[in-house]
Amino acid sequence: MAHIKVEEEVPGIRSLVMFRPETGKQLYEMAQILLRDESPLTPAERELIATHVSNRNECVFCASSHAAAARELFGDKREVVDCVIHDVASAPLTPKMQALLTIAGKVQINGREVKPEDIAEARKHGAVDRDIHDTVLIAATFSMFNRYVDGLASLTPTDPKAYEEMGKRMSTLGYVLPKS
Amino acid sequence: MAHIKVEEEVPGIRSLVMFRPETGKQLYEMAQILLRDESPLTPAERELIATHVSNRNECVFCASSHAAAARELFGDKREVVDCVIHDVASAPLTPKMQALLTIAGKVQINGREVKPEDIAEARKHGAVDRDIHDTVLIAATFSMFNRYVDGLASLTPTDPKAYEEMGKRMSTLGYVLPKS
Repeated sequence: MAHIKVEEEVPGIRSLVMFRPETGKQLYEMAQILLRDESPLTPAERELIATHVSNRNECVFCASSHAAAARELFGDKREVVDCVIHDVASAPLTPKMQALLTIAGKVQINGREVKPEDIAEARKHGAVDRDIHDTVLIAATFSMFNRYVDGLASLTPTDPKAYEEMGKRMSTLGYVLPKS
Repeated sequence: MAHIKVEEEVPGIRSLVMFRPETGKQLYEMAQILLRDESPLTPAERELIATHVSNRNECVFCASSHAAAARELFGDKREVVDCVIHDVASAPLTPKMQALLTIAGKVQINGREVKPEDIAEARKHGAVDRDIHDTVLIAATFSMFNRYVDGLASLTPTDPKAYEEMGKRMSTLGYVLPKS
C-alpha cells in the first residue's frame, strides 16, 4: 500500500499525478521533452538510458515500464534492452552508446562521479554536447522519478502484461497525462 | 570547466538553462511550484529540505544557494539552517520537521529506504499526506538538480557573497528564468 492516500489500483507515477496534478503536469511535460522531442539521441536510445538508471536504482515500476517502451521502439533489435538490464558491459551497443550509458550509470551514483575522461571517451566515439547533456539530464531525471515512485511506495504491478501495455502506449502516444 | 560548452562565468544551473531553454523552463517552473506555491510546508521549511538533500549529495552549488535562500526565509531563526547542515539530529527543529528531514534523507539514498515506520513517525507529529508527498518530491527533485549541476561540472562559485545574493533573489523573486 502506498504511504499516502492515492487511488487504489492506479499504478506507479499515475497515482501520484492524480494526487497532485500541478506537479504531475510538469513531470509529464518534462518526460515528453526529454524522451521524445528533438535530440541527437533517438527515442529508443533515450528510453534505454531511462531503463538503465531505473534498473540500477532497483525501481521495478520505472525499469519495467521504460524497458517495455524501449523494446517497442527498438523493434527487431529489442534484445538489446534485456542485454543492458542483465549486463551492460557485454550488451551489443555502439561504442558511443556504451560510453553514454557509462556516464548515465555514474550520474545514478552521484553527479561528481562523472570525470573528464568519461566525457572524452564519449566524444572519441562521436558524442556531441547535446548527446552528453541529454544523457546526464535523463539520468538525473530518472534519479528523481525512481525516488518519487518508490519513496511513496506507489503500486508496482507484478503482471508483465501490464508493462507491455504501458510500453505500447508510451511508445506510440508518448507522455500524455492520464484522464482523471 | 564544464563538461559541455556553456556560457563561462554563468554559475550552476543557470548556465545549463541557457544551454537548453526547453528543459530549463520546465525545471524552473517545477522549482517554483514545489518550493513556493501552496503547501502545508512553509517556503523556509521546503528550502531546508532542498538544502539537506543537496548537502547530503555534496552538491556545493545547490547546497550553498538553497541554504542562503533558507537563511533569508527563516529570518531571525536562520541559525537552524547551519545546524541542519552540520548535524541534523541535534538541530532545533519541531519533531514533525525532524521526521520529515529523516524521510528526505532516506529518499536521498533511494526511495525504497523510506519505511512505514518513518511515515508513522511523521504522522504522529502531525504530518498529513501533503507534507509527506511534498517532502518526498522535493527530496527526489533535488536528487535530480544535484546530479544535473554536478554531472555536467557546471561552474560552482567559491565566493560566499555570490550565494548570499542568490539567496536574496530566490527568497524574494522565487524561481524566475534568467534573462538570456
